Amino acid sequence: MNSYGRFFRVTSFGESHGYGIGCVVDGCPSGLALSREDIQVELDKRRPGQSPTASERREEDRVEVLSGVFEGRTTGTPISLLIRNVDVDSSKYEALKNTPRPGHADYTWRMKFGWVDLRGGGRASGRETASRVAAGAVAKKLLSKYGIEVVAYSKEIAGIKAEGFKADNPGKLRKLIDSSPVKAPARGEDMLEAILAAKQEKDSVGGIIEAVAFGVPPGLGEPVFDKLDADIAKALLSIPSVKGVEFGAGFGFSRMRGSEANDAFILRDGRVQTETNRCGGFLGGISNGMQLVVRAAVKPTSSIGKKQASVDLEKMKETVLEVGGRHDPCIVPRAVPVVEAMLSIVLADHSLVSGLIPRKL
Amino acid sequence: MNSYGRFFRVTSFGESHGYGIGCVVDGCPSGLALSREDIQVELDKRRPGQSPTASERREEDRVEVLSGVFEGRTTGTPISLLIRNVDVDSSKYEALKNTPRPGHADYTWRMKFGWVDLRGGGRASGRETASRVAAGAVAKKLLSKYGIEVVAYSKEIAGIKAEGFKADNPGKLRKLIDSSPVKAPARGEDMLEAILAAKQEKDSVGGIIEAVAFGVPPGLGEPVFDKLDADIAKALLSIPSVKGVEFGAGFGFSRMRGSEANDAFILRDGRVQTETNRCGGFLGGISNGMQLVVRAAVKPTSSIGKKQASVDLEKMKETVLEVGGRHDPCIVPRAVPVVEAMLSIVLADHSLVSGLIPRKL
Amino acid sequence: MNSYGRFFRVTSFGESHGYGIGCVVDGCPSGLALSREDIQVELDKRRPGQSPTASERREEDRVEVLSGVFEGRTTGTPISLLIRNVDVDSSKYEALKNTPRPGHADYTWRMKFGWVDLRGGGRASGRETASRVAAGAVAKKLLSKYGIEVVAYSKEIAGIKAEGFKADNPGKLRKLIDSSPVKAPARGEDMLEAILAAKQEKDSVGGIIEAVAFGVPPGLGEPVFDKLDADIAKALLSIPSVKGVEFGAGFGFSRMRGSEANDAFILRDGRVQTETNRCGGFLGGISNGMQLVVRAAVKPTSSIGKKQASVDLEKMKETVLEVGGRHDPCIVPRAVPVVEAMLSIVLADHSLVSGLIPRKL
Amino acid sequence: MNSYGRFFRVTSFGESHGYGIGCVVDGCPSGLALSREDIQVELDKRRPGQSPTASERREEDRVEVLSGVFEGRTTGTPISLLIRNVDVDSSKYEALKNTPRPGHADYTWRMKFGWVDLRGGGRASGRETASRVAAGAVAKKLLSKYGIEVVAYSKEIAGIKAEGFKADNPGKLRKLIDSSPVKAPARGEDMLEAILAAKQEKDSVGGIIEAVAFGVPPGLGEPVFDKLDADIAKALLSIPSVKGVEFGAGFGFSRMRGSEANDAFILRDGRVQTETNRCGGFLGGISNGMQLVVRAAVKPTSSIGKKQASVDLEKMKETVLEVGGRHDPCIVPRAVPVVEAMLSIVLADHSLVSGLIPRKL
Repeated sequence: MNSYGRFFRVTSFGESHGYGIGCVVDGCPSGLALSREDIQVELDKRRPGQSPTASERREEDRVEVLSGVFEGRTTGTPISLLIRNVDVDSSKYEALKNTPRPGHADYTWRMKFGWVDLRGGGRASGRETASRVAAGAVAKKLLSKYGIEVVAYSKEIAGIKAEGFKADNPGKLRKLIDSSPVKAPARGEDMLEAILAAKQEKDSVGGIIEAVAFGVPPGLGEPVFDKLDADIAKALLSIPSVKGVEFGAGFGFSRMRGSEANDAFILRDGRVQTETNRCGGFLGGISNGMQLVVRAAVKPTSSIGKKQASVDLEKMKETVLEVGGRHDPCIVPRAVPVVEAMLSIVLADHSLVSGLIPRKL
Repeated sequence: MNSYGRFFRVTSFGESHGYGIGCVVDGCPSGLALSREDIQVELDKRRPGQSPTASERREEDRVEVLSGVFEGRTTGTPISLLIRNVDVDSSKYEALKNTPRPGHADYTWRMKFGWVDLRGGGRASGRETASRVAAGAVAKKLLSKYGIEVVAYSKEIAGIKAEGFKADNPGKLRKLIDSSPVKAPARGEDMLEAILAAKQEKDSVGGIIEAVAFGVPPGLGEPVFDKLDADIAKALLSIPSVKGVEFGAGFGFSRMRGSEANDAFILRDGRVQTETNRCGGFLGGISNGMQLVVRAAVKPTSSIGKKQASVDLEKMKETVLEVGGRHDPCIVPRAVPVVEAMLSIVLADHSLVSGLIPRKL
Repeated sequence: MNSYGRFFRVTSFGESHGYGIGCVVDGCPSGLALSREDIQVELDKRRPGQSPTASERREEDRVEVLSGVFEGRTTGTPISLLIRNVDVDSSKYEALKNTPRPGHADYTWRMKFGWVDLRGGGRASGRETASRVAAGAVAKKLLSKYGIEVVAYSKEIAGIKAEGFKADNPGKLRKLIDSSPVKAPARGEDMLEAILAAKQEKDSVGGIIEAVAFGVPPGLGEPVFDKLDADIAKALLSIPSVKGVEFGAGFGFSRMRGSEANDAFILRDGRVQTETNRCGGFLGGISNGMQLVVRAAVKPTSSIGKKQASVDLEKMKETVLEVGGRHDPCIVPRAVPVVEAMLSIVLADHSLVSGLIPRKL
Repeated sequence: MNSYGRFFRVTSFGESHGYGIGCVVDGCPSGLALSREDIQVELDKRRPGQSPTASERREEDRVEVLSGVFEGRTTGTPISLLIRNVDVDSSKYEALKNTPRPGHADYTWRMKFGWVDLRGGGRASGRETASRVAAGAVAKKLLSKYGIEVVAYSKEIAGIKAEGFKADNPGKLRKLIDSSPVKAPARGEDMLEAILAAKQEKDSVGGIIEAVAFGVPPGLGEPVFDKLDADIAKALLSIPSVKGVEFGAGFGFSRMRGSEANDAFILRDGRVQTETNRCGGFLGGISNGMQLVVRAAVKPTSSIGKKQASVDLEKMKETVLEVGGRHDPCIVPRAVPVVEAMLSIVLADHSLVSGLIPRKL
């Protein structure tokens, strides 16, 4: 349903074309310094209209903190965050009412719920992820107090891979990403070109987002079912358009030998570490103290300008659909902060569950 | 922790070298015909010693049904299943007590729990998955009453891909798999050869397991967080050695254009279907009525005969480890029924949650 | 924490003197006709300033529906409800900052959370219950579609018992209650007099609230832990000032013999019923088809004008406290709609869990 | 369903006349010294055949520890406990198959589950509570390490109240209780006489169980829904035959004035305490550092020798029922260890949730 987490529990609400969207963050420890700006700054990262590739809808995405913070600190009570919708034009969705858009959730929501508000994608819209980014901002603030930092970026777009950069320092990495038009630490211009080429053809492209978590101590994860990687997988797959998740060498493991795949244990700086990090920081579903490395496959934007075949569900007749309006030819860059947020939420939750972060700061 | 699911809730218990392992299946509807044999037959599929590649430990894996069934039918009360351990030799594990095996969970369990029983891998052992297969047998029996069937198989081992088979009929597919030495619908002999080659070199290989679910109606999945694919991802990633999960075209989506990626809606047999099934049966995290297609990346067996570097945690000194004993050079075939079981458990849970299957039959 | 329920899941947020309070209702089936007025009418029942006994703070308690409803029907997505705070004067709470008020949660919240917003009772305030009444209004609308109705009333105030009325028809019962100054079906004037006498003496009185649920079919309740009565007990005890809960003959059972206590089964109107209803409609924690009868003990308002002993937690010195301001000398009547709401929420949740109410209407 | 708790999570299974009963305790921290005898000693307290009043079925109730303990210490993995059934005679239940016993769960289970095993009460039997006592033994061992001890006793039986004893020292209190034939700290002989008088008349009596928790620090409880008292209420109401729960002055509050009801804060031994403890140790649903005082109303045993009216559900005809066999004329003494167990389980769970007890000892 619409809540995620046990101790750092996020309940998301709102539709793309309704009054607004928001979330309630329950379980954040009391005593954490938190301001509206801490949240706004994260929201601004996923705002459209920043780059030449994003859709041009002007969302101001101004967050309001309705509860849970008193004189600049969290009180341990639910933090409720609200973002009002502005610049909403629902007129064009009337035409799509009975004709599900390929690749979108229109058909399945209709089958499941019967009575639906599909204007702007309704609740299946990417817009819902703004709630996640807002909640993630709280998680990030909490984690940073304990030396944990998550950095996500476009690892691949339209087949172009970001390579040759170092992912060992969160600050440097973030600088690379922030200076890129597509949130990639390398080859961002090439990726942008490929996106614009697809746009030209009324088409769209997909990609891969990678996220690295720095400073995670050993011991997070609750086997055998609530393993840390299992929970991350669920959280990332719950993001619209994500179709796969892998950890460390991931699918590459399937072609390795055990002698290549195993990371040897070594002593470094008086601490047990692994020489390589093919496992991506997870052993038996528990963090091993190395950097966590996760990747999510993002499908190309489903909304494309090209004509597509569909079915009129009212008349039960095949038809051809042309989805008008402004569309983002590649959602990978905008999904980057969402991946960062969800991974931070999972880590905040597991940190509280494992006792790494106390319930009162 | 050690429970999975909301309405079809599996609680797993037991260690590799303790009294036994087992599980409690809570929430299975009353009135389902269920016998001990229904469960035994599934357990037999993951039993070692079946093929030339598996480790030779003789596990009889005889399941006992301790509760929840009366005169051959489930009563709606918890079904508890117990499998006693036999043929347990814990002597060799004494040597590994302070030296974590690379790729295994020894180190992280020790960091997390402090006091651990690592004999035979303890609870992080693949043996724990027998509990899942037993619980999955109940799920499969329940699903079959509603026309849903899950079939899993080795899709790739050591880089050799099973191709050219048809996955449109569960019966035919199962025949292909059952006649393969490695549970692959094609190229099984080649895969076996590659496994034996690795064994020869005291090494191991990994692979990919694919699972297809037939007969799933549209409407399963609880957005925005408990999406069907998200829950499947968590369930599969909770299986030891699984390092990645993808749906439909999965990571392949990242190199597609939207016009290739979208599945057009069509009318076939008076029913709304999609022309292609690149999305793997999920739209917006809800089943769309097509076959569900899921793949899991399995890393090579961590236990290998080769010498490996590790650290003696007692003396805090680097050392070299040689893991003796019998090891399975490829766990992919034995993990196939586990994937089948976990996917069945998720589908049973969602079927109950969505109301597709009633709580009293 | 701040969520209640599995399928009809209410997440409450907000503080007495913050921006506002509200809740998110997740899991309400799609297709239910629901208007802002449906909720407002319930909220108006707990509004202060209605009777001579209530505190005079003027809360408008105007509810806004932020999501989950489209063209007058629920969509199956989270219904978020917001009530802004008005008429808030926090000045007097400065004096109480370090001196916990006897009977209140000031001390324990401070011990638990460290950093607290105790203005107006913060989140431990009775004001939080407005969120519950709002969520309960949705539950009531849902239940009414399935013939279930909950009616609560003041059963006893200051030792004066409401007796001699019939509780067999919800409509008639509600008429009696609505015409009473203290929401009692009988002896309301006597109760009012006792309340005013206590007020005169700067004191307060307690009482008992009884709730009856009509139309509940047999079969609600999930033994052995999530029994219907057990879940109701938890829900009612979560209401501020409730200190006890009993079902049917309740504590009176302790002095009965088995032959008096057991309700004989009879056939009436072709239906299995019980001749008496001492069990209050619950057998083995499952509804038996008779009316559900529940009672909650409510302690006298903790805020009284009289001087009370306390401790200055900053100086760690005993002191004397005089709680100024307006106080309600008896909260029983205002708690009546809260009991009605919580019982309705539990019944809605169990109706969905058991499948009595489908997830799509 | 059949699990209780979040972090100290008990899953109960088994039927009265099946193979056996048992439970899985998940989430108990690793490193706790725990032996089979620790559990057996608690089970022995609820064994029948100890006093002249109990039913004479000879249950050996020998517990086996199947997992979760290694070399005398818990490992943080699920602790599974099994008690085999012996001395089971199901023959007499055939006669009751279609005729529900008044006061029992026969009718409601049949309505809910359809297909039921009612032999010996099936899973609604008091026998199921042996699982709770076993799980409670683990909770007690854990709590005792942190200075928390729960003592329960018969506070009232057949209208005879235990009075004039001191409940300020767990050791002394337990001595009183252990030397009583009915687990009462006072007037045990009178209670026993009343029980035997009822037995003579083929009837039964009820009573009240009181439990006191010593050593609970301030801060347990998760408002606003998972309050400590609310969770205790649910746990106690889930015990068969319990029909009411109250805290501190409980229902007595309803006749008090606020000035009587409030407990003044004082400084004693350099610690903030309350002069009286009418609130029973709970303020705002959070423990305040005083002793917790809880009472549960227990109805008279439903099984009585007297003839009772019922309905034959097969023939849909009214009939008269005579329940043969051995029955306990008063279950209060045997329910005492169950109350103790459930309260301990709730406290263990909240201690882990609040961080008072760490997840690794």
